[in-house]
Amino acid sequence: MPEATMSAAGEPAASMPDGSLRASQLRSDAIEADLPKNPQRYRLLTGDRPTGKLHIGHYFGSIANRVRLQDAGVPAMLVIADYQVIYDRDGVGDIQENVFSGIADYLASGIDPSRTTIFTHSAVPALNQLLLPFLSLVTEPELHRNPTVKDELEHSGGRAMSGLMLTFPVHQAADILFCKANLVPVGKDQLPHIEVTRLIARRFDERYGRAVPETPVFPQADALLSPSPAILGLDGEKMSKSRRNTIEIGMSADETARLIKRAKTDSDRRITYDPQNRPEVSNLVLLTSLVSGQSPQAVAERIGDGGGGGLKKACTEALNDYFAPIRARRAELMADPGHLREVLHAGNERANEVAEATLDDVRTAMRMNY
Amino acid sequence: MPEATMSAAGEPAASMPDGSLRASQLRSDAIEADLPKNPQRYRLLTGDRPTGKLHIGHYFGSIANRVRLQDAGVPAMLVIADYQVIYDRDGVGDIQENVFSGIADYLASGIDPSRTTIFTHSAVPALNQLLLPFLSLVTEPELHRNPTVKDELEHSGGRAMSGLMLTFPVHQAADILFCKANLVPVGKDQLPHIEVTRLIARRFDERYGRAVPETPVFPQADALLSPSPAILGLDGEKMSKSRRNTIEIGMSADETARLIKRAKTDSDRRITYDPQNRPEVSNLVLLTSLVSGQSPQAVAERIGDGGGGGLKKACTEALNDYFAPIRARRAELMADPGHLREVLHAGNERANEVAEATLDDVRTAMRMNY
Repeated sequence: MPEATMSAAGEPAASMPDGSLRASQLRSDAIEADLPKNPQRYRLLTGDRPTGKLHIGHYFGSIANRVRLQDAGVPAMLVIADYQVIYDRDGVGDIQENVFSGIADYLASGIDPSRTTIFTHSAVPALNQLLLPFLSLVTEPELHRNPTVKDELEHSGGRAMSGLMLTFPVHQAADILFCKANLVPVGKDQLPHIEVTRLIARRFDERYGRAVPETPVFPQADALLSPSPAILGLDGEKMSKSRRNTIEIGMSADETARLIKRAKTDSDRRITYDPQNRPEVSNLVLLTSLVSGQSPQAVAERIGDGGGGGLKKACTEALNDYFAPIRARRAELMADPGHLREVLHAGNERANEVAEATLDDVRTAMRMNY
Repeated sequence: MPEATMSAAGEPAASMPDGSLRASQLRSDAIEADLPKNPQRYRLLTGDRPTGKLHIGHYFGSIANRVRLQDAGVPAMLVIADYQVIYDRDGVGDIQENVFSGIADYLASGIDPSRTTIFTHSAVPALNQLLLPFLSLVTEPELHRNPTVKDELEHSGGRAMSGLMLTFPVHQAADILFCKANLVPVGKDQLPHIEVTRLIARRFDERYGRAVPETPVFPQADALLSPSPAILGLDGEKMSKSRRNTIEIGMSADETARLIKRAKTDSDRRITYDPQNRPEVSNLVLLTSLVSGQSPQAVAERIGDGGGGGLKKACTEALNDYFAPIRARRAELMADPGHLREVLHAGNERANEVAEATLDDVRTAMRMNY
């Protein structure tokens, strides 16, 4: 299930003015400080596209952060964005397998379905209906200005873009606003998506009014720009299933060892943490650090002149130790598909209740409550 | 409630190749011939935008035809397309009033809610959800090629088009396909909309497959190009609320008389039926003919040298006679808003059942039935 739809990684988008980026960062910092004190003030929305299996990049990049926020007491919704699979591909792939494997990963990693509602996009019609009023609030040029849409246009090699891809920013707004989420953990590159969502919420209020006089139907969502470690693939490139450089959460200890053994390093036997000049070695150091609780510098020092072999051994051991209980829980969960299905059905039911309540507000504001 | 979304009026669209137009006409003729024998083979979808009050142009242009098809035994759905109101305007206007007034017009005109399901777009989330898979099946250039979208772009005076307007052809496909309608009464200008719907149905089958192996999820819908009289407004221009040249179905006999008295005619006292050279006079002759059952020529002959005054008198009397029972029923219906509400709620419930069954098929075909 790679390509988190709302993940915390990436570079600042070129289209975000510096001032706006700084303002978002300041707001995010203030929220981080307030979270432990007032978790119930927030409603969190996160999600993933079920295009493959979740890997340790997802784990450290977003899942661990979701568990942290959930455990701090923030009510959360987690969307498995199955309709997003077909934005840029012609089929749904192994969608059933990816969805249930993802749910097992979530639960094994500490997502508690009684506190975080897990649901699939396609199961919540009232959420999807929000697309219609929302589409009336943005123009075609505004859709084009969105960096994801822009990117797709630039990298399409002349292939025409689907209507689904073009309207992507509006779908994200519906995902966020259906549950009136006011907090979305994203990378800086995804700030423009949050901006579209804020714009739609504002315009809805101006144009269609309110269900009750005191408050707008939709809140202004904020980005939570939590720092998250940028983990590379085992080849030193961006971690991605299509590059076959990932370690899936659900892999065995042996598979993990085999993959790390093949990882790229360099010929300098002295291990250091120097991401700029030694990206591959530093990536393994960072991974080891993340799962052992030691700083990257301490990890490097401990391995010393052990070379690539010593580093890989330390990394493999630390990673397998860390994931052993998660993988054991995951194996139990995967052995009980009925339970995974129940978790999803309960989440879908809850998401439908939330979406229908919001849609009722929308109908009232638009005077379509006949 | 002007601007029927699926109405039977208008000129052939420039973008339809002649051969395709001829083929559509032949199919439509064959269906007209088959309809009385096999009404249950067909499922009809028609609808209106609730942007104002329904007038006699709607009555003769589409409502009378709907009643004819319903009474022939064709199962029918009638959508009050409330989300279409905001395609090209910033507010919903008197939407509540327009919706209930429209329902009263339908019922008074002979639409039987036990045979024709009357529903509002905004009340059927499972219908609206179809937008997502459908949007994945069309490209942005294909959306632009649609004549309604093209027209909007050309007449916008540089104003950016909303996402809702841009995706209009896909919404129409969802309206038609949610109930697996295979018959849509349209004017020739709307054939391209039916083509988009056929294309989406075909591509869905090719790309996402089927719920059961034997049949595609969606049928290929046909246009029913029933001939319908082209009634002009009282000023000889296109009949339209914004031109204030309409006679609403629900107007009183006095209002009707007053409006016809102000209608444009010419100075030739001899009344003839000559739409080419005497459009205003011929329009009143045609109206009189429609409601009296006489041919336009016979109507003209009967009035003879009676001039504009005689024509207006004859037209007023005939129109008021014809609409008297409809208006009496309409007044009774408007006096019982609870009943109108019940009719709509029952229709919405039925439309939701139909839409949810179709959405289940869509989820099965796309393997999103978790």
